Amino acid sequence: MRALLLDTDGTLSLRVRPRPAIRDECLIRVTAAGICGTDLELFRGYADFSGVPGHEFVGVVEEASATDSAWIGRRVVGEITVGCGQCSACRAAGRGHCDVRTVLGIRSRDGAFAEYLSLPATNLHAVPDSMDDVTAVFVEPVAAACRVVEQVPIETGTRAAVVGAGRLGLLVAQVLRDRGADVTVVVRSEVSRSIANTLGLETVDVDSGPSLARRFDVAVDATGAPAGFAAASALVRPRGTLVVKSTIHGETPIAFSPLVVDEITVIGSRCGPFARAIELLGDDRVEVKPLVAGIHPLEQFAEAFDRAKRGLKVILTPGRPRPE
Amino acid sequence: MRALLLDTDGTLSLRVRPRPAIRDECLIRVTAAGICGTDLELFRGYADFSGVPGHEFVGVVEEASATDSAWIGRRVVGEITVGCGQCSACRAAGRGHCDVRTVLGIRSRDGAFAEYLSLPATNLHAVPDSMDDVTAVFVEPVAAACRVVEQVPIETGTRAAVVGAGRLGLLVAQVLRDRGADVTVVVRSEVSRSIANTLGLETVDVDSGPSLARRFDVAVDATGAPAGFAAASALVRPRGTLVVKSTIHGETPIAFSPLVVDEITVIGSRCGPFARAIELLGDDRVEVKPLVAGIHPLEQFAEAFDRAKRGLKVILTPGRPRPE
Repeated sequence: MRALLLDTDGTLSLRVRPRPAIRDECLIRVTAAGICGTDLELFRGYADFSGVPGHEFVGVVEEASATDSAWIGRRVVGEITVGCGQCSACRAAGRGHCDVRTVLGIRSRDGAFAEYLSLPATNLHAVPDSMDDVTAVFVEPVAAACRVVEQVPIETGTRAAVVGAGRLGLLVAQVLRDRGADVTVVVRSEVSRSIANTLGLETVDVDSGPSLARRFDVAVDATGAPAGFAAASALVRPRGTLVVKSTIHGETPIAFSPLVVDEITVIGSRCGPFARAIELLGDDRVEVKPLVAGIHPLEQFAEAFDRAKRGLKVILTPGRPRPE
Repeated sequence: MRALLLDTDGTLSLRVRPRPAIRDECLIRVTAAGICGTDLELFRGYADFSGVPGHEFVGVVEEASATDSAWIGRRVVGEITVGCGQCSACRAAGRGHCDVRTVLGIRSRDGAFAEYLSLPATNLHAVPDSMDDVTAVFVEPVAAACRVVEQVPIETGTRAAVVGAGRLGLLVAQVLRDRGADVTVVVRSEVSRSIANTLGLETVDVDSGPSLARRFDVAVDATGAPAGFAAASALVRPRGTLVVKSTIHGETPIAFSPLVVDEITVIGSRCGPFARAIELLGDDRVEVKPLVAGIHPLEQFAEAFDRAKRGLKVILTPGRPRPE
């Protein structure tokens, strides 16, 4: 099969690779896969990953073990972490936090920028027929956005700021709004302001930050950039909550004392509930089409990743039949 | 009156100063005052403070306005923050987080390393006759330790690690134990191990850290040192809680991604409930005498601060009658 391979030196190339051996898992032909900020961080050395990246996907199950044969032919999305279910971390915090976990396209498991991937059936969720592939690619990041409202109590009128109006921030903002929060998106460019406004979201320019200092009950860093932590934390009121969605390679200098003095709660937030994401997308309560900057076949990966660096969602279509 | 003065250049000296003007507050003769890690950070520029430091004290009210005259002659300890009660921060998070607050010996208000200090009567708590001055000096830091169990749910058997076996860490450890937690104190020296053991606390050497990685439901950084954050965060299990008590001047390089991936909750923790602290100290449920490294008159401030750098509690006695 064709696959994008991230080498240990940080270079990405299109290669021919054997299809994954499925063992007790399902073999899925990937019809569409999204590029995420974490993928871009992998190139910078994040998670020390080499192999096939990609963890946001939709595809069709082509092979499965006898037990899971009911999945064959179904269109699916998949939770990205495979845990052992036995270790102390699994018991304390669930399989997603397994000590010996593999993570699709991130940790010891080839991912979705390939014609095929393999995942256990327990990780799969069927996609409703009414949902197109482009929307389905967003199930994983919308689930990650939904994780925020699992972690932080949001009520009608909770003042929430989302810093970073990219492919993740604009999903988080919509999920918070759906829960009743009074959401402000902090934007850096006219492009992101325009997209946020298309989605009906209120925006302020990042330079207005100081005037909004300590105003919000909750702020979310969805910048994917080292400066996001400080920008978002400055917005949180005393005893408020800062949610960090950015996974950034390396260390960031942080002045932590103001957070101690203000008794801020900082919460790291990762993967979330797929079923809830499918529901929100199916009901059009989270809109994703304005976030799509491009759809490319695997061969155009260089262009696709360049475009993804600008912050919106770029989709690859590895396992689609190629035009003759 | 005699007072220690921290100058803008970071030097401390013994001076003669006018007594504080009390206006609507109470004038308190300070019989004992403790040196805290925050005081040592002030010398390094923390909080950009100049004036009389010191915020842990016990004293006797000598003057008060007519309304508060009932306080005259009473032995008291005092909450350190004076807020306006009007601003949005006061409304959202209480007077302790007031936007225009003053803080005894830390922010725009002279502190306890002087013969006299002034505080509003609302900040004062009477000290039971049965409690000696040395114990009473610990009310403020024990309250700060109690704040942790207000912020984090602790149950019988909650696995808690306290990193930093100094004057604050050993109080936090005792308060956690009192709540039923299974407490481990991470120690760096034989001296702190020995004191922790005197208090009946289990200890491990800081070098055993790696073998304890991701084992604890809750870890508390009470080191007062930049390295404490990383050391404590490494001990927290996925979805566990890291409590930060250290207030450190400047920025610290932090690798935040592991905290995001493990979905750690990081909570800044500051001042706590005085009434609860008085109760715990009165019932001998928190023991403080083994933490006292020295008691000095104000004149010996240089020796006192040098000794405090070693991590235990050093007490000054500014407003006590001097021996002839």
